[in-house]
Parts: sequence; structure tokens; C-alpha cells
Amino acid sequence: MRTRPLKVALLGCGVVGSEVTRIMTTHADDLAQRIGAPVELAGVAVRRPSKVREGIDPSLVTTDATALVKRGDIDVVVEVIGGIEPARSLITTAFEHGASVVSANKALLAQDGAALHAAAEEHGRDLYYEAAVAGAIPLIRPLRESLAGDKVNRVLGIVNGTTNFILDKMDSTGAGYQEALDEATALGYAEADPTADVEGFDAAAKAAILAGIAFHTRVRLDDVYREGMAEVTAADFRSAKEMGCTIKLLAICERAADGESVTARVHPAMIPLTHPLASVRGAYNAVFVESDAAGQLMFYGPGAGGAPTASAVLGDLVAVCRNRLNGATGPGESSYAALPVSPMGEVVTRYHISLDVADKPGVLAQVATVFAEHGVSIDTVRQQGKDGEASLVVVTHRASDASLTGTVEALRKLDTVRGVASIMRVEGE
Amino acid sequence: MRTRPLKVALLGCGVVGSEVTRIMTTHADDLAQRIGAPVELAGVAVRRPSKVREGIDPSLVTTDATALVKRGDIDVVVEVIGGIEPARSLITTAFEHGASVVSANKALLAQDGAALHAAAEEHGRDLYYEAAVAGAIPLIRPLRESLAGDKVNRVLGIVNGTTNFILDKMDSTGAGYQEALDEATALGYAEADPTADVEGFDAAAKAAILAGIAFHTRVRLDDVYREGMAEVTAADFRSAKEMGCTIKLLAICERAADGESVTARVHPAMIPLTHPLASVRGAYNAVFVESDAAGQLMFYGPGAGGAPTASAVLGDLVAVCRNRLNGATGPGESSYAALPVSPMGEVVTRYHISLDVADKPGVLAQVATVFAEHGVSIDTVRQQGKDGEASLVVVTHRASDASLTGTVEALRKLDTVRGVASIMRVEGE
Repeated sequence: MRTRPLKVALLGCGVVGSEVTRIMTTHADDLAQRIGAPVELAGVAVRRPSKVREGIDPSLVTTDATALVKRGDIDVVVEVIGGIEPARSLITTAFEHGASVVSANKALLAQDGAALHAAAEEHGRDLYYEAAVAGAIPLIRPLRESLAGDKVNRVLGIVNGTTNFILDKMDSTGAGYQEALDEATALGYAEADPTADVEGFDAAAKAAILAGIAFHTRVRLDDVYREGMAEVTAADFRSAKEMGCTIKLLAICERAADGESVTARVHPAMIPLTHPLASVRGAYNAVFVESDAAGQLMFYGPGAGGAPTASAVLGDLVAVCRNRLNGATGPGESSYAALPVSPMGEVVTRYHISLDVADKPGVLAQVATVFAEHGVSIDTVRQQGKDGEASLVVVTHRASDASLTGTVEALRKLDTVRGVASIMRVEGE
Repeated sequence: MRTRPLKVALLGCGVVGSEVTRIMTTHADDLAQRIGAPVELAGVAVRRPSKVREGIDPSLVTTDATALVKRGDIDVVVEVIGGIEPARSLITTAFEHGASVVSANKALLAQDGAALHAAAEEHGRDLYYEAAVAGAIPLIRPLRESLAGDKVNRVLGIVNGTTNFILDKMDSTGAGYQEALDEATALGYAEADPTADVEGFDAAAKAAILAGIAFHTRVRLDDVYREGMAEVTAADFRSAKEMGCTIKLLAICERAADGESVTARVHPAMIPLTHPLASVRGAYNAVFVESDAAGQLMFYGPGAGGAPTASAVLGDLVAVCRNRLNGATGPGESSYAALPVSPMGEVVTRYHISLDVADKPGVLAQVATVFAEHGVSIDTVRQQGKDGEASLVVVTHRASDASLTGTVEALRKLDTVRGVASIMRVEGE
């Protein structure tokens, strides 16, 4: 084993960063054995240097992150700051000064992954980011390496623990959205401003990264269709139960049936209770992958938290250090397929639609005509009437999202349709 | 991209091998992009050369596997023959003649993994075998690479699809073992001689491989305690249900509480219905991993079959080819921890014991005394009596398997105990 240590610079020392340093210290011997050389923490860039950081030599702490990544003797930069800047500039500078990079930054990777990969390749360095998607769950390495000889057709994931906690709570207790969100906030599962989670921004960033890797195609955050889950109601869960379903906020990356394009989207959807994703409880994450040869795979685990994210960071750190000792780099970005990303309208899916309608003869015929005119075939209809009011629950067969949207718009214009109570896509069948 | 192809020799052309050649042909362009060079099938060693093999150039087919691996121009040998010999000699010869090896051979890896890894290392070549454990499920790469910075404490797996199909059938229909086995045989899930599956030999080989990788320690097949599932009865499933459990044949690899030794075992066990492994249905496989930092992870998918196994083989093939182009090798065997493998008696677990006892006063006191004398603490006892006969169901707290075995032996000697109806370990709590 080489005795000269590999030098690691840590950018950011919050929940994840401090866990990374803790494991680097307590498992130093194990890491050295697995890498083939010891690793040494050479510097820690923070915003508040006065904060006491247990187990970290104060002389390593600096507020000048740029100087740290420019030192020239750093082998690996671990970036756990998050956000776009200064993380992006620091990573680029790190490559320019000879370091490889391990990042947990999903927002940055989703937005600027292509440019960062290009910078890594230009300088012959590694860019690894297992922790950016679904925390500790090994996902990027299995997709990029284990399935490298296979053809992935669909990735269906619960990739945000906060929203899964809320939806699971609504499902199991019958609570409304606000009540479940309040509980998630009280328990620390949701942030004070939960927008990034409940509006699906966080999941959309992960969907962009997953789609890119799964389909060997660049998928940008802007390419991902996104709907939040704030409008999911207790009534939706009752409807879902009647269909033998539950509701999850899903990140869905699909190859079109002809194989010539891909789509990526995030929205709440009904999935059958028999689907392996339906039983993913609490703040856990899980990603379901369908491929030509392997069939159906699922990866399950904690999607966030300091220690789980640190586990993913350290797995990458070991790989990058090994590559460095070998004078090699791991697999970089693979975007050779360069498939076009189709808009949401071209996604083929099913709808579950609840309509409030007038309780009089001929309404169903009118409604059915609208579906037919838009080329949307109906799977089942259920009518319930009371006191001159009635509800109509329609579940469609598979159709393009554009046709389904057009159908709903036309339904809203019917005099006999008093309102569209809910629209929910049905997935995972 | 390099235009000179990498040459692949295929040993065995059965269900898996023919699927490997099919994917190599249909996905040739994708594979070339992912590797950075085209791959070419340079030879296929078979036993029956006269058999027509669709899509394979007959001039590539040979019965002389040894000559094929000795050619000297082969970059990667894919071994899907199975069994110990001639696979072992062929793999060793392949290394000697400069090839790297991808194998799907669990029996061979479990028995001779250390020697084969040493041969690979001696010649600076790769030995990859993702397909040897749980078919298409990415498991070896996540354990060896993604969790390389973490500390795995327990691996709990359903790694045999045949037995899971049988147990799932018993659970869902109330069928007895023989009836469920007959159905598995009729549907092609069980072989005509199901011994390797139902007696746990197949799962034990996988447990040895998993324990070795998880704990960085050599674990041989002989180190794995093994009990088959032929004695599991419909009554056991009823008992399990009463406890909120189901029964699975589990491969369990554990680090002792003090971290200083490991154990590996295969046996049927009760697990709570709330455990993610409980809902693994049919012939699917799943492996649950507990580690210090990542927490609880689960990997789920098809554990067998031509196409899923070929997916794993091809993932390895891409990795090995990339390493070859880089002039590097991937992570080899890591056995630096070299922890002792403890015998079954030192495993700490819980027992669910059903006793047929005389229905008279004092029996429970007698039985409880035996437990106490062996230092085994009782969690719950349930008595049911009718017509002078009674049954006593005891669930213990955690104790060493040796103490539990000793307890059962002493119970059998009690006059008031007419028989031990069943003993089952309880796991996953």
C-alpha cells in the first residue's frame, strides 16, 4: 500500500460535510485499505470559521474556498455546499488545478451537468455524484455501470422523502394536505419553506440527472415537466383506494415506444397497491427501473440525511481515489444517444378524472362524446348521484397527454359539467 | 473511438450464453459507444456443436474450450458454463493467457473465489461476477463500490427465486410444501431435482460471496450454516400470521455486535410483514443491506432467467472492456479485514417454538425453568389446550443459537413435552 496520503479538500461542513469528516476519521484504516493509500483531510472551506467543529483540526478550516481548490496538491475536492454558485466555479477551478470532484449537488448537476462533465474530461479528471440522487441509495453507479450492457426503458422513482412522508401520512390517516404538511414540518421532515419539495423542484432535478444517465442523452432541468402535490386531497386518496391504488409523487423518465425520443416528468400519480413502489413508506426513497434484459429492478433506501448522504459521498471518494492511484478515470458522461426530449403533450399515460355534473339524463352520453372526439378511449366510468348533483369518475385508456388535456378543457366547457374535481395520472401498470 | 474491436470468447451457450450473444449483436452500437471500442465475438465453446444456434456464425463454434482461452488474442472470457470443472481450469488458463474474465458461476466463486482472485491479480486481469448473485440485481458492484466508504453490518437476502415462489404460494394459498413444490415444478420455477434450491445449497453459495464482499473477509461455502425449507409446514405459516409475520428462506450475513467476527447462514425464518423483504413475491429476489452510515437499503429484481442474468454479464463485460482500454483493472478481492467466521452456535437470534405438551398443571413452569436454565429469556408464551393435549407456543428474546439449541434439546427430554412441532428463527426486527 502506498504510504503517501491522497489529499481531500472539503467544501462545506454542514450536516453532510461534518458526517463525511467523521467517517473519514473513524474509518481511516478501512478507507486506506479499500483505496490502497491513506486519505488525508487537507482543508475544509466554510462560511463561519468561528463555529466549533468537533474532530476537525481548526488549522484546516478556511473561508477561502477558491484558494483551497487552487492549491494544486489536492487530489479530490468534495463539494457539499449545494446551490449553483459558488459551487459551480469552485468545481471548475478544481478541475483546472488537477483535482477530481465528488459532489452531492443535484441542482447544479441538473442545470450544468454537461458543462461540468466537459470540464472534467478536458482535464482528465473524475466527476462523481452518487449522493445527488436519492441519498445513500446506489443508483447512478448501477444505472451507469451495472446496466451498461442493457437498455433502460423506464425509470419510475420516489426521489423526495418529504413529499413521500406527507403522502404516506395522508394515505394512512386520511389527513388533508395541510395537516400532513404541518406534521412533516413539526417532525423536521419538511423545511420551513417547503416549496422546493412540495412543488417538485427537487424531484425534477433528480429526474433530469436520472434520465440523462438512463438514456445516454442530455436532459436539462428545463426539459422536465413538473407538477407539485399541494392540490392532492383526501378525496383523491379515497378515489385511489377505490381503484386499488395509492398516490405518490413520481419522477418518471421514459423512452418513447418507438425508442426515438425520451420524456421526463414529475407529478403526483396513482399507482396500484401491488406495485413495489406503493409500499415505500415514510421518508424513504425508491427507484424502479425497467430495462430490456434485466426486467424490473428496484432500489430502496433513505433518500436524505447526513449519514446516508455521506455514505454515498464516501463511496464515490473511494472510487475516485482508486482511479487516481491507477492513473485512470471512471466512466464519464455518456450522451452518445442524444435522443430528443419530447414535451409533456407527447407522453402517453392514463387519466383518472372526477367530474361534478348535473344529475340528468344524457350527461354521460355528452361526456363520452367529448372523450371520443379527442380520440381518448374510456376504460371505466362510475356515476354517483344525489339531490340533482352527480359525480362521474372516468378512468381512461392510454392516450397522449395532449389529447387528455384537450379532453379536460372541452369537458370544462360543457354546461352539464359543473366542475372538474380532480385529474390524476395513473402510472405503474 | 477505437476501431479495432475487443475480442470476447464465450464459454457455454445455454440460456444465458445465447442471450449474451443476442444482446451483443442487437446492441452492438450501444455497447461500442459505452465501451469506447467495438466488441467482437471471437469464439463460442459448446458441448454439442451440431445444435443450431440462431445468430451465431457456425465458424465461431468450437468444442475445444481450452484452445479457445489459450488463443492469446482474447480480451475477455465470459464463462457461463457453471459448475466447478472445467470452469475453474478454463478461467485460470484464461488469466494465464492474458484475458480478463466475466463469470456467472456462483458455485465456483463460493468455493474457489480466493484462488481465482489471486490468479486474476497475479496476471493483472479482472474477475467480475455480478451475475453470480441474484441475477440481474446490481448487488456486487453496489456493495463493493457504492458502499466502499461505509461499514456493512448485515445482509439479509432472498436470493433464491424457486424457494421464494414456493413459500409465497404456501403463504398466499395455505398450500402445503409438496403441493407448492409441485406447482413450482409444473410452472418451470423448480427443476426436476430441486435439491440445490430447496435444501439451500444455491443460497448458501450466494451467502458466501455476499459475506465476503460485505465484510472484506474470505468466507467459504463450508463456513455457511445451511438449513433447507422442506420442513416448513402450512401450520408454520399459520403461526407466522398470528405473529404478524411471514416465512422466507433467508441468506443472512452478519457482523457480530463487537465487530470482531462474522457469520453467514441460510435457513427459513419468520420476518415481520412490515419488513420490506416480506412483500417480495413469486420468484423475485431482494437483498436488504444494513450499514453504519447508509442505514437500510434494499435491492430488488429478478434473480434468475436468461435475459436478466445476461444483463448482469453484459454490465460486467462493459466494465472489464473499459478497464482494458484504460490499461487498468477494477477493484479486486478485498479481504484485508480477515475477520474470523464464527460457527452457527454464536449467532444471536430469536426462536419461535411450538411444543405439544401434556394438558396438566405445572407444565408451563417446567418449560419456563428449562429456558431459564439455558439463559434464554422468554418474550411471549401462548397456551392452547384441548382433550388432555395442549400446545405451547414460545417466542424467545435474542440469545445465542447454541443456547437455543440446548434449550430445545432439554425440552425434548421433558416427560410433559410430547413433541417439538416446529422451531423457526425470527429475523428482521
